[in-house]
Amino acid sequence: MGPLPRTVELFYDVLSPYSWLGFEILCRYKNLWNIHLQLRPSLIAGIMKDSGNKPPALLSRKAQYLMGDIKLLREHMQVPLQFPKDFFSVILEKGSLSAMRFLTAVNTENPEMLEKVSRELWMRVWNRDEDITDPQSLLAAAEKAGMSTQQARGLLEKISTPQVKNKLRETTEAACKYGAFGLPVTVAHLDGHTHMLFGSDRMELLAHLLGEKWMGPVPPAVNAKL
Amino acid sequence: MGPLPRTVELFYDVLSPYSWLGFEILCRYKNLWNIHLQLRPSLIAGIMKDSGNKPPALLSRKAQYLMGDIKLLREHMQVPLQFPKDFFSVILEKGSLSAMRFLTAVNTENPEMLEKVSRELWMRVWNRDEDITDPQSLLAAAEKAGMSTQQARGLLEKISTPQVKNKLRETTEAACKYGAFGLPVTVAHLDGHTHMLFGSDRMELLAHLLGEKWMGPVPPAVNAKL
Repeated sequence: MGPLPRTVELFYDVLSPYSWLGFEILCRYKNLWNIHLQLRPSLIAGIMKDSGNKPPALLSRKAQYLMGDIKLLREHMQVPLQFPKDFFSVILEKGSLSAMRFLTAVNTENPEMLEKVSRELWMRVWNRDEDITDPQSLLAAAEKAGMSTQQARGLLEKISTPQVKNKLRETTEAACKYGAFGLPVTVAHLDGHTHMLFGSDRMELLAHLLGEKWMGPVPPAVNAKL
Repeated sequence: MGPLPRTVELFYDVLSPYSWLGFEILCRYKNLWNIHLQLRPSLIAGIMKDSGNKPPALLSRKAQYLMGDIKLLREHMQVPLQFPKDFFSVILEKGSLSAMRFLTAVNTENPEMLEKVSRELWMRVWNRDEDITDPQSLLAAAEKAGMSTQQARGLLEKISTPQVKNKLRETTEAACKYGAFGLPVTVAHLDGHTHMLFGSDRMELLAHLLGEKWMGPVPPAVNAKL
């Protein structure tokens, strides 16, 4: 028996494109590295408020850069990111509160489905420019991920319960306690220490900390290795 | 004869620790990849002003993160970064105007010395916590880089000429035209297109764009390859 897997937490919000990149990279590596990946749905708006940070896209030159950066990373990292047409309305006005509550409910009731439902929500907002605020949108994502209508409806009913609301608040606060001022945030637990890494561009550093091999954002498939 | 080397410009300021990381990585790769590296000393204060951006360390949670990040990257990237004791005075009050004018003069008169003198200035401010604003500091860095006292003094006399002042302003404006809102900025010229990459964490993406191999921040030495 080898050494115990190290816990790696990923705090993310489906509103954040860089969260999607970090999410896909860690999902690809979770079976290649000796880690236990904990997916932690959080609310980016809460983190911004608590830290006093502002979304980068509010500065016009950063917004401009972001669009080019996402385009290059999309291809390099093989994640099908596509800017929503009305970026500001989607990100700043509509937000992700119900989507992240929905994922919180998935995490509590059907944690084995969390990865797939998260990905389907990103596919909606950051690939097909579809809504993620209406109940119908959440149901559609859950069904696309492989849930039954009944199962999805059951989760939807839970998103306004105090349990789910509190759980999302607690997870967001946990990210803040680790020092988050945006998302994604990766927290590596190593030998009694925690290392908080911000952004999707610290994964090679994460590999270094874990003593694992970095093979780029698209590592050879687990299958190919066997 | 192989294909012509692609031009890669690196805009940097010795006040910026992430510029140092980008600088060392590109200096390591410049003979491993088929590139022509152009080092372009710029003024970060000018870029911040022009873009309306604020130094990240002004947000306390970002400042906190920066310190941990630099510490981890120092080891991972093997660049001896060390936070100056009075960070705010060094970065926000003292600044780098004379240092970057000095490097501009080096670039004009003795371009073959630019890499070494830049590194010695970083060693002063971001390793030994020494001044980089007094003429004596600039002379000391130049001499440590291998210049004669006479040569260094000749360059120092040039830093208040309109030629040098204008040249630094022009380089800073060029970075802004590429869309800079901070430093380092790497600009890759490929097949008639330019790609602007911000930060020290886009070097693997740069390799991808160039069709070159990324071997981590510390590639096997050129010598070891031969």
